[in-house]
Amino acid sequence: MKEHGYVIGIDLGGTKIATALCDNACNIIARVKVNTEAEEGEQEVIRRIGDSIRQVIEISGVPVKQISGIGISSPGPLSIEKGTIIYAALLGWRNVAIRELIQQEFNIATYLENDANAAAYGETLLGAGRGFSNVVYITVSTGIGSGLVINRQIHRGKHDAAGELGHICVELNGRKCSCGNRGCLQAYASGTAIAQIARERALCQKESRILSLADGKIESIDCLTVEKAAYEGDSLVKELWHEAGVSLGQGISIIMQMLDPDIVVIGGGVTKAWKLFYEPMVRVVGQQTYKLISDDMLIVPAQLGEDSGVLGAAMIALTEGGKCQESLFLQQKISMKYCFR
Amino acid sequence: MKEHGYVIGIDLGGTKIATALCDNACNIIARVKVNTEAEEGEQEVIRRIGDSIRQVIEISGVPVKQISGIGISSPGPLSIEKGTIIYAALLGWRNVAIRELIQQEFNIATYLENDANAAAYGETLLGAGRGFSNVVYITVSTGIGSGLVINRQIHRGKHDAAGELGHICVELNGRKCSCGNRGCLQAYASGTAIAQIARERALCQKESRILSLADGKIESIDCLTVEKAAYEGDSLVKELWHEAGVSLGQGISIIMQMLDPDIVVIGGGVTKAWKLFYEPMVRVVGQQTYKLISDDMLIVPAQLGEDSGVLGAAMIALTEGGKCQESLFLQQKISMKYCFR
Repeated sequence: MKEHGYVIGIDLGGTKIATALCDNACNIIARVKVNTEAEEGEQEVIRRIGDSIRQVIEISGVPVKQISGIGISSPGPLSIEKGTIIYAALLGWRNVAIRELIQQEFNIATYLENDANAAAYGETLLGAGRGFSNVVYITVSTGIGSGLVINRQIHRGKHDAAGELGHICVELNGRKCSCGNRGCLQAYASGTAIAQIARERALCQKESRILSLADGKIESIDCLTVEKAAYEGDSLVKELWHEAGVSLGQGISIIMQMLDPDIVVIGGGVTKAWKLFYEPMVRVVGQQTYKLISDDMLIVPAQLGEDSGVLGAAMIALTEGGKCQESLFLQQKISMKYCFR
Repeated sequence: MKEHGYVIGIDLGGTKIATALCDNACNIIARVKVNTEAEEGEQEVIRRIGDSIRQVIEISGVPVKQISGIGISSPGPLSIEKGTIIYAALLGWRNVAIRELIQQEFNIATYLENDANAAAYGETLLGAGRGFSNVVYITVSTGIGSGLVINRQIHRGKHDAAGELGHICVELNGRKCSCGNRGCLQAYASGTAIAQIARERALCQKESRILSLADGKIESIDCLTVEKAAYEGDSLVKELWHEAGVSLGQGISIIMQMLDPDIVVIGGGVTKAWKLFYEPMVRVVGQQTYKLISDDMLIVPAQLGEDSGVLGAAMIALTEGGKCQESLFLQQKISMKYCFR
């Protein structure tokens, strides 16, 4: 790790590209956020990433020479070694050598990381997992994924594919999942699944709060409608969040039995409904997990919110690809000098 | 790691205590195996361990001064830090400070390790997992457990309880498990479960090969009878091994999705029936696991047989508690100079 370098973190998502320039204590010096506009194609998106990098450099006033690395958080599967995105459904990309493209354009060491891993690393070094060596970060959003920090290192696995929590089977021959299998956790507790199940159930009821919130249109019910309806007391929908909590609890219990982590951090959009699923989730973890493990379990919401990815990516760059030094695991502070614009 | 030291490994089990003295390449120089006789009580068992240590030293002729460490593999849960066995059902022990007792008696640095972890470490350094950095070792025996070697280190977890594969839920509200929960993998695919299910099914049939193998006594059916009956063509029993394979496949798929390991090594008594459950097990792993991961998956039987525990314990001592150096992950050779006597 360079002592006096600045780094840039990029969170490449299906709808937004967030970019931040940070100092070596991961204080954000400058940040920009632009729409991905994936439909305009690969070259255009990569141009936008380049523009974002130039913008944060310009805003910050930091000389390019002092920028020691660029970290890119991307959906996968990826090849970390080759620096390529093997496939990204939301972007419609196959085999894009993004690390090389950015590294050549800026002549700055560039690192690519899986989005769930980057967020896990960010939360571990700067967020809810601060001070812990073994952290499981779970993102519950459109899909469900996870990133594992084990013994202070990102655990990537043989194919850089570790952490596929969304596609572990929680019910044999259960609901059909987008991956083609049945019974995956993602088919029960992701935002997409929750909205889908709500639509199926609303079909069976003549009147419900959720249906009126969606102006009577079943197809307009999404995860936010489901959240709103639950807070307004719709019992059908409360039951649905309860069930999602039970499924998440099953998945978390499996992780806890296998890894006995220091802490489980849950991020992603669905955590906005934390109060609606927390209680059944924790109860199931308590029931299905060894007492020794569950007695003092820590299951907490993420602290960095939408920034976990971009800050994680910056930390990946700061630690030259995730080679974290012990000192970084001590308390870090982060200041939000700039808001997204 | 001391360059020229010898080490002693001890595998403390419910029925046998195996002890081996090894050189620093983990060649076994001397070995003894005695009955545990747990019913004679804690002090007596610890005396037997001490006697075994003295015996291997005597047989080997190695001066005590040249023995740099003693590793003890034990059923748990344990506290690695305190060196205590918190609880061992098969021994009937609670809070036994075994590390301190042995260390004081012999004045040799002593290390305690969970039995599945020790076997995982042994198989990783000397057996089927040789040369790999991320190894999952699964033991399928009376119960089901696992040991994880991640990034060349034993992953123990916050409570030294990682690897509880036997108690992950594979069927919500499924079969009752000895742990008190329902639907645990152990309730479907352990030796105990296989025998139990065979007894239940034999009850429903007037005649079967398995029942005649057990002299018509349902209560005499054990896991070995089930294995024998399957090889003799009993279709009821073949189906049962098939189901056990499916359940194991579910468990392994979950591990592979979460950890994307280099290799999965399966040990324990039930692996003697490898041919009876391998095909359905691998098929389910293929179905329920990301293609990227399963396409080149390695699921292999353990290579060290009954010695994985005692050799793992010796390796724990050789690496001063599992702090493995890179060079040890290169090819190791092992010679069996002495047989158990």
